[in-house]
Amino acid sequence: MRAAVLSKGEILVRDDVPEPVPGPGQVLVQVKACGICGSDLHFARHGAEMLALGREMEGLPRGRGEIDLDRDVYMGHEFAAEVLELGPGTETSIVPGTLVTSMPILPTAGGIDTIVYSNSVKCGYGERIVLAAPLLLEVPNGLPAHHAAFTEPMAVGLHAVNMAHVAPGDGAIVLGCGPVGLAVIAALTVQGVETIVAADLSPGRRRLAATMGATVTVDPREETGWAAWAGTGPERPPVVFEAIGVPGILNDVLRCAPARSRVVVVGVCMGDDVVNPYFAIAKQLNLQFVLGYEPAEFAASLRSLAEGEIDVAPLVTARVGLDRVPWAFAALGDPEEHCKIIVEPT
Amino acid sequence: MRAAVLSKGEILVRDDVPEPVPGPGQVLVQVKACGICGSDLHFARHGAEMLALGREMEGLPRGRGEIDLDRDVYMGHEFAAEVLELGPGTETSIVPGTLVTSMPILPTAGGIDTIVYSNSVKCGYGERIVLAAPLLLEVPNGLPAHHAAFTEPMAVGLHAVNMAHVAPGDGAIVLGCGPVGLAVIAALTVQGVETIVAADLSPGRRRLAATMGATVTVDPREETGWAAWAGTGPERPPVVFEAIGVPGILNDVLRCAPARSRVVVVGVCMGDDVVNPYFAIAKQLNLQFVLGYEPAEFAASLRSLAEGEIDVAPLVTARVGLDRVPWAFAALGDPEEHCKIIVEPT
Repeated sequence: MRAAVLSKGEILVRDDVPEPVPGPGQVLVQVKACGICGSDLHFARHGAEMLALGREMEGLPRGRGEIDLDRDVYMGHEFAAEVLELGPGTETSIVPGTLVTSMPILPTAGGIDTIVYSNSVKCGYGERIVLAAPLLLEVPNGLPAHHAAFTEPMAVGLHAVNMAHVAPGDGAIVLGCGPVGLAVIAALTVQGVETIVAADLSPGRRRLAATMGATVTVDPREETGWAAWAGTGPERPPVVFEAIGVPGILNDVLRCAPARSRVVVVGVCMGDDVVNPYFAIAKQLNLQFVLGYEPAEFAASLRSLAEGEIDVAPLVTARVGLDRVPWAFAALGDPEEHCKIIVEPT
Repeated sequence: MRAAVLSKGEILVRDDVPEPVPGPGQVLVQVKACGICGSDLHFARHGAEMLALGREMEGLPRGRGEIDLDRDVYMGHEFAAEVLELGPGTETSIVPGTLVTSMPILPTAGGIDTIVYSNSVKCGYGERIVLAAPLLLEVPNGLPAHHAAFTEPMAVGLHAVNMAHVAPGDGAIVLGCGPVGLAVIAALTVQGVETIVAADLSPGRRRLAATMGATVTVDPREETGWAAWAGTGPERPPVVFEAIGVPGILNDVLRCAPARSRVVVVGVCMGDDVVNPYFAIAKQLNLQFVLGYEPAEFAASLRSLAEGEIDVAPLVTARVGLDRVPWAFAALGDPEEHCKIIVEPT
């Protein structure tokens, strides 16, 4: 079958990828849509560094096996797909032809694989993948595949907001309006947060932020998010979402955030960064670092999309076949032109 | 009167310091005991840098006036004192001769002064100071002044523990057993935390940690606090107290802490520090930076000392007059020899 792969730092399209075969408890699905995530762009450029960091870190269970960057790496974890056939002995009420999504993990006899980056497990930038039957979620209400593919990135925003424990009357500052920041804004809006200040350098991204529910949008070259927040006449410290994830931003947040702010770090800065802890100490800041989502959040995200609580249509800036995945990885470098590109392999 | 002052980076004893005069609502007190805080040692060495950082930071109300390091700076904020006389029109039920303590702040008509570092407000390393009558706390149960002087540093530990929202069944790792780490251990013990792993390079400090209630003490050159924690068979992530406050420690905590740990940063690292946020993101760590205490915590700290819940006697490694304050600042550099030195100006 065909799939786009990461090959020694480059995105290539292969025609001779082995067909995945569903085992017991698994289903074979046809990928209808898969969003390109910023983390994929990052992995394509800085995969070796990311893997080295993972090895250096303690306190997490070790993953299964290592990814070999000298071999082809399958990618794509924001997918919606149509059920083709069930593996041997697989029991599920979901019938072939059903549009589904799933958290990008695959429990197997040997452990838990992820459907994110892998030398062996087929991922969403390919024609067909294998999913675990117990994790399948049927896409309801006729939600199209290229919107259902937002279940995963929108769950990331929902998880960030849930980890902030937003209380009635809280307001938020969202720094960075890429797909993650926009997902945070969408989740804040669903939760009824009344003041959402969003800051981004790009006019296009600021327009999208407003569409998703931001009540104030600013160009930080003209007015900082902090100043805009102060201008809303807040009565308590904000919840700050750091969704930029480049070196230097975290220290800027520590330096500028109002005393007692809760800061949710959802932007992924992979490299060493310089901070001055004294800023955080003097203002007794709380930093909650977040990643991913819980199963219930993934399901809630799909529900929000299917029930029209969140309309992701404005975020889709291109829909492309597998042939154009290399182009899409390059095109996503321009925030003015593109937000979310959906790959439609079949 | 006599007072030890910071004069251009050196600790000197002056004989000609102007007597403080209590205004309306204030009382004049005779300092009986004042503990030397690690932050005083730091300010003596890095005061200019600390003041510059304060100017750079946003999000906090500006303090009153600037400290001029070219002039004498009064210091000493962990005091217990005897009431000498009331200012004009001051109403209080506390009579002269009473041993008292107070949070080190002094509300005045012009704003809030602190009794910590000042070119004008007299602080605890001097014979007499002025306190605000509404903030006075009578020292009960015959608690001696050199123990009552621990009200302030023990309140710092209590605040750190309160900000961690320790729940029944939680266990703790305390990194660093200086006076702050020991105060944290004491507060954890009062709150009934059953597993308290304490790590420090110094054997003397580890002995004090055990005395204050640590259930496991380790020399990190032989076994890390993380390994010792894992050895206790924990069923949930720990609450980690970072009470070392030197560059590099924070990143080590991020790299090594178990997933989902809550980290309370109570050690004050004043300079730039390098961290890799990815460690914190991948493990969804929560970092709560803390400083100081609330008024209720200050009062609770005094109560714990007076009721014998916390016995600080083992922490007092010297009691000196004003003449020996310069010696004490130097002596506190050796953690084996000294923990808390109490200055007894009168």
